[in-house]
Amino acid sequence: MRDVVEIGIGKTALRGYHLDDIAIVPSRRTRDVDDVSTVWQLDAYQFKIPCVAHPSDATMSPSTVVALGRLGGLGVLNVEGLWCRYEDPTEVLESLGTLDDDGPPATRRLQEVYSAPIRPELIADRVKTLRDAGVTVAVRVSPQHTLSLAPVILDAGVDILVIQGTIVSAEHVSTQDEPLNLKEFIADLDLPVIAGGCTDYKTALHLMRTGAAGVIVGVGADGWSTTDTVLGIRVPMATAIADAAAARRDYLDETGGRYVHLVADGDLRTSGDIAKALGCGADAVMLGEPLSRCEEAPAGGAWWHSAASHPKLPRGSLSVAEEPLGPMDKLLHGPSDDPDGTLNLFGGLKRAMAKCGYRDLKEFQRVGLVIDR
Amino acid sequence: MRDVVEIGIGKTALRGYHLDDIAIVPSRRTRDVDDVSTVWQLDAYQFKIPCVAHPSDATMSPSTVVALGRLGGLGVLNVEGLWCRYEDPTEVLESLGTLDDDGPPATRRLQEVYSAPIRPELIADRVKTLRDAGVTVAVRVSPQHTLSLAPVILDAGVDILVIQGTIVSAEHVSTQDEPLNLKEFIADLDLPVIAGGCTDYKTALHLMRTGAAGVIVGVGADGWSTTDTVLGIRVPMATAIADAAAARRDYLDETGGRYVHLVADGDLRTSGDIAKALGCGADAVMLGEPLSRCEEAPAGGAWWHSAASHPKLPRGSLSVAEEPLGPMDKLLHGPSDDPDGTLNLFGGLKRAMAKCGYRDLKEFQRVGLVIDR
Amino acid sequence: MRDVVEIGIGKTALRGYHLDDIAIVPSRRTRDVDDVSTVWQLDAYQFKIPCVAHPSDATMSPSTVVALGRLGGLGVLNVEGLWCRYEDPTEVLESLGTLDDDGPPATRRLQEVYSAPIRPELIADRVKTLRDAGVTVAVRVSPQHTLSLAPVILDAGVDILVIQGTIVSAEHVSTQDEPLNLKEFIADLDLPVIAGGCTDYKTALHLMRTGAAGVIVGVGADGWSTTDTVLGIRVPMATAIADAAAARRDYLDETGGRYVHLVADGDLRTSGDIAKALGCGADAVMLGEPLSRCEEAPAGGAWWHSAASHPKLPRGSLSVAEEPLGPMDKLLHGPSDDPDGTLNLFGGLKRAMAKCGYRDLKEFQRVGLVIDR
Amino acid sequence: MRDVVEIGIGKTALRGYHLDDIAIVPSRRTRDVDDVSTVWQLDAYQFKIPCVAHPSDATMSPSTVVALGRLGGLGVLNVEGLWCRYEDPTEVLESLGTLDDDGPPATRRLQEVYSAPIRPELIADRVKTLRDAGVTVAVRVSPQHTLSLAPVILDAGVDILVIQGTIVSAEHVSTQDEPLNLKEFIADLDLPVIAGGCTDYKTALHLMRTGAAGVIVGVGADGWSTTDTVLGIRVPMATAIADAAAARRDYLDETGGRYVHLVADGDLRTSGDIAKALGCGADAVMLGEPLSRCEEAPAGGAWWHSAASHPKLPRGSLSVAEEPLGPMDKLLHGPSDDPDGTLNLFGGLKRAMAKCGYRDLKEFQRVGLVIDR
Repeated sequence: MRDVVEIGIGKTALRGYHLDDIAIVPSRRTRDVDDVSTVWQLDAYQFKIPCVAHPSDATMSPSTVVALGRLGGLGVLNVEGLWCRYEDPTEVLESLGTLDDDGPPATRRLQEVYSAPIRPELIADRVKTLRDAGVTVAVRVSPQHTLSLAPVILDAGVDILVIQGTIVSAEHVSTQDEPLNLKEFIADLDLPVIAGGCTDYKTALHLMRTGAAGVIVGVGADGWSTTDTVLGIRVPMATAIADAAAARRDYLDETGGRYVHLVADGDLRTSGDIAKALGCGADAVMLGEPLSRCEEAPAGGAWWHSAASHPKLPRGSLSVAEEPLGPMDKLLHGPSDDPDGTLNLFGGLKRAMAKCGYRDLKEFQRVGLVIDR
Repeated sequence: MRDVVEIGIGKTALRGYHLDDIAIVPSRRTRDVDDVSTVWQLDAYQFKIPCVAHPSDATMSPSTVVALGRLGGLGVLNVEGLWCRYEDPTEVLESLGTLDDDGPPATRRLQEVYSAPIRPELIADRVKTLRDAGVTVAVRVSPQHTLSLAPVILDAGVDILVIQGTIVSAEHVSTQDEPLNLKEFIADLDLPVIAGGCTDYKTALHLMRTGAAGVIVGVGADGWSTTDTVLGIRVPMATAIADAAAARRDYLDETGGRYVHLVADGDLRTSGDIAKALGCGADAVMLGEPLSRCEEAPAGGAWWHSAASHPKLPRGSLSVAEEPLGPMDKLLHGPSDDPDGTLNLFGGLKRAMAKCGYRDLKEFQRVGLVIDR
Repeated sequence: MRDVVEIGIGKTALRGYHLDDIAIVPSRRTRDVDDVSTVWQLDAYQFKIPCVAHPSDATMSPSTVVALGRLGGLGVLNVEGLWCRYEDPTEVLESLGTLDDDGPPATRRLQEVYSAPIRPELIADRVKTLRDAGVTVAVRVSPQHTLSLAPVILDAGVDILVIQGTIVSAEHVSTQDEPLNLKEFIADLDLPVIAGGCTDYKTALHLMRTGAAGVIVGVGADGWSTTDTVLGIRVPMATAIADAAAARRDYLDETGGRYVHLVADGDLRTSGDIAKALGCGADAVMLGEPLSRCEEAPAGGAWWHSAASHPKLPRGSLSVAEEPLGPMDKLLHGPSDDPDGTLNLFGGLKRAMAKCGYRDLKEFQRVGLVIDR
Repeated sequence: MRDVVEIGIGKTALRGYHLDDIAIVPSRRTRDVDDVSTVWQLDAYQFKIPCVAHPSDATMSPSTVVALGRLGGLGVLNVEGLWCRYEDPTEVLESLGTLDDDGPPATRRLQEVYSAPIRPELIADRVKTLRDAGVTVAVRVSPQHTLSLAPVILDAGVDILVIQGTIVSAEHVSTQDEPLNLKEFIADLDLPVIAGGCTDYKTALHLMRTGAAGVIVGVGADGWSTTDTVLGIRVPMATAIADAAAARRDYLDETGGRYVHLVADGDLRTSGDIAKALGCGADAVMLGEPLSRCEEAPAGGAWWHSAASHPKLPRGSLSVAEEPLGPMDKLLHGPSDDPDGTLNLFGGLKRAMAKCGYRDLKEFQRVGLVIDR
């Protein structure tokens, strides 16, 4: 039944499906929207909505991490971002927010501001700010810098560690440095780790076997990402999530009950996209660009990925600031006055669940899907 | 033969087809257009054309309900619409007709005007107006308000009751209110009920088992609907209609002869779309936006769905008024002077039937189809 | 192997392919372009190129019929067109050529000028002009008017009769008039008949059994046709041609050797399209809009189908005149100075045949194809 | 498993895939980018990057051939191009670089400047210039002119001979001239020959049997080519490369070890495209238009194919000059400041290989692929 295609004699490819290729089919009872719960629990931490922030400086500053936490989601601060390179990055962020062109000059500006060194003492400061606010504290570090930055991060006292690169594997090979051994690293920690991205069953399974509490599926690609044109890597998210969900099932069986959460990161723009990602098997979604449209966004509405500032091979352009759609609360919980799916993101999810008759997120992973593109 | 696709390991989806994905293939004799009949009979009521109006205030006022009835179709007044909230909604409708932007301000205006309460005495008045005009009287109520509004509606004396929401199931679950039990409700009535929308075989079959005379297939989605982006629900109409037609066959067999009519509601813009919907198995079509282009349209050509005025999660934008295409008679019966398929809608249907050699609508459901997109 | 798809439970559709969906794959020897022949022979008539004109007044006047004949193709005059309704339609054609909008006013103008009655004596005149010029004489008549106009057409002395409507079947049913019995009509003639359009195997086979020398495949649809939106009929030409070619093979077998020619009419814009239609199995192509771009075009470059002037249900808009691309000779035989495939149409065909190693049209029907859209 | 489709009764077509239809799926370990090698070895010649230039005058002058060689690739001069028709084509190139329209006037200008005769003494001169610069010397000749121009080319002393036409077969048939017998011709040479294009398994295999060291897959088609619309030939590159790779395997087996290199020529615009072509099985890529965007480009950024200047049937329009993206070194090796995949082409390839865990090009041909369009 799996669509394995011979693209040429002896060369096969699986067929993959994007979230845009599928839709939800209500096919059973309906339910009152007030009887539906979107609660998500990761390890000891419970969230009112299955929403993790993509750790971009365009959306996640210490204050927006706190704001998102208070609104029921999980904010993530990038310890390799501007807040850990500059004492006060406010001006830098403002200058990025006033760029009016998404071309090479914007890319060069990104490359320039990110060439400032990471300052460990700022990491400690930022984490303290978050702790003091009383929200669940999560920070992101790249696999390359995990070993060097872990001591300061752990000392500062975070709740959840996000180890995220475009593609993260359980086995990184290097002839030059001692590479990060994720399994050993996680075994020594006593806090939950979310690791990724990954795009297929095998890598997801291996990441689960490292002991990660959560695995990120996808490379965070959105309309502004160019992972596709630069690297030839394009992730059909519906397939990637479903494949990782199969890995979750197999790993659950192989461990006799260890459940690893899937956090979908990519192609998520509307409440409909969120519903589809969860319907494919994700436990939570990582939101990038959508959060850049809230009034609290630190760069005034501009948006960029971390890969957009790569010094030699940037993979994503800066999206110039647009008028905010409203406060973060309105984006997440409504009420909406714009029917395009970008407001009341989790109210929309809740209503989709109600129309399909499901009570909670785990049940909703079984919703019927149709392919129609 | 059914295209069941594994989108990821262990996760399947059916493949669905939109009306745009298919076309009609003439493949037998041809026939004189004058020998073709488009008569449609629902219960005791006969219609010259298989045309039901989508119950939007943008197209259906008491006077256009009457006009459509006189032209051979079935008009439907929304008892939760403006005509049952305002003594005289003319000015409100005019103000909506002069909006020149389809963005959030238009949505907020819709939300505002629909926040006025429903007034039962107006329902009685409106129905009386329709009865007095001598046409078949049909009104629409949402499942949520059916129990509370039924007494006044039934007292007023309607011929056909349309119970319509985005998705209506035979089994609505609620922990808060006593939900509508459609089967019991219909059993107590002695008038035909049309209920829906639904999008799949199982829901259609269950709706048929409630005793409904007609089932609405589709969620009324058109170019202005955002059910897809907001809820992740996108209905491939050709598949939805064909699946519901299978439910109709099975229900016919299980009851030894009770024939339930399918009313297709969604993606219908041109006479070609109408022909394709009927070719897929529909008995009639529900027309929304196309009727907003006639001179008699109450909001001067503006168009919106009922879901477009939802107070917290609107799902459809207002389409600003365009120049009318002509009187309703010309839209339905021609002659046409615009070859884009929006005029002479049922003359176009008749000619398609003639070119394929069919005499009546029931026969035409067997027409050959091709998938070519 | 045939792609039969269940679009819904119990409802199937064949999958069809447009010419745009396929491409030619050179996969054997190559050949000198000068060794390739494009000669086409229909009954006693030989043509240098397999080119028949679509009988639109926009391209076919008595003088362009003659011009096309002299350049190696077959011109076709429409006896129901303007040249047989007006003593001198020059001014009417000029006025259509100067319209600058393709909307309803243009359609109304077409409806108006075609409301003038057909004058039989003009048919005789026009045919005489063609005969005197010494080219093969072909005229088009609709099935509806064949019985009434045949006497004057046959008396006038044509070589080939084209009986063409949007869809023509071998069995037309009417309760009002005595319909045309194509088989009896053709049996009584002693000149070759080309009949169509048709879009499937069965209709093609039945048309062959009427005794037609050629069958038109397709409804002449191009970018300006709206048969799709108005009637729901959309013809995937690659499939329609291949299916009709199967009918040709089966009819050849059933008659022990009667070869009926397939004339493809629709979706033909470039030399690449022509090559693909012949590669699918057509014997010749019917060119409509492409010929409207030659300097000799009677309406100065404007283009419309016969169905565009239908009084009640027009199915095609008028395409306003554009700058001509050059004389007819350049369009057909080059040399080209525009690489978009609209010039040197049959030189392009010849070169495609050479790159695939084929010598003549009949051989070229076996060329390899790829589906890639 | 191979997708053979019956497009109509009895007429089949294979399904082909473009590079745009597929993407790379990282699915194993990851690797340090510094541990990845892109070295390509053809016969005795080693290249730092698997990059051959498409022999267009728009990109390849004697000085850019040298520049590309010094940067690790293989430049190719067209001996039928302007540098072998004009003593000094600088002015001609400049005039082409200042054209500001890609329409017929540009095509006529190309036809005109290429109507000057080829001057054998200039071929000798140009080759000498290249030899003197110390890079690997490769020139392109068309199959038609190979026999007549070979003596002067070989006397001049080239390292690699590229025999390239739109479609080149191992067996060209002509009733007029003595055609080129590739097999005999190559047998008599003692230098490696790269021959093509070809688009399928059989032609690739036959070209390998002529003794060619490399086979060109594809017809060099890019956004500016009109081989599709003019000839009906459209090459789905992913399939063409994979099919040719199967021929390479079979030929390797049949000869007990002769490895023929595949050079992909077509649809290559970004580093992602390059990675995908190699992932499908190519050994190297032939770059056309991308090199026209470097500062050294001889026609100031304008781009055209050789087929664009064909005197009777041009198949490609001139692309007017755009602002250069940077020096050739930056295009090939970065660093990039534009995330659209057109800069740091081979740095991008290297990073894609690293993210998939491969060390060298040959290994990378086994990378996992997904079809998602």
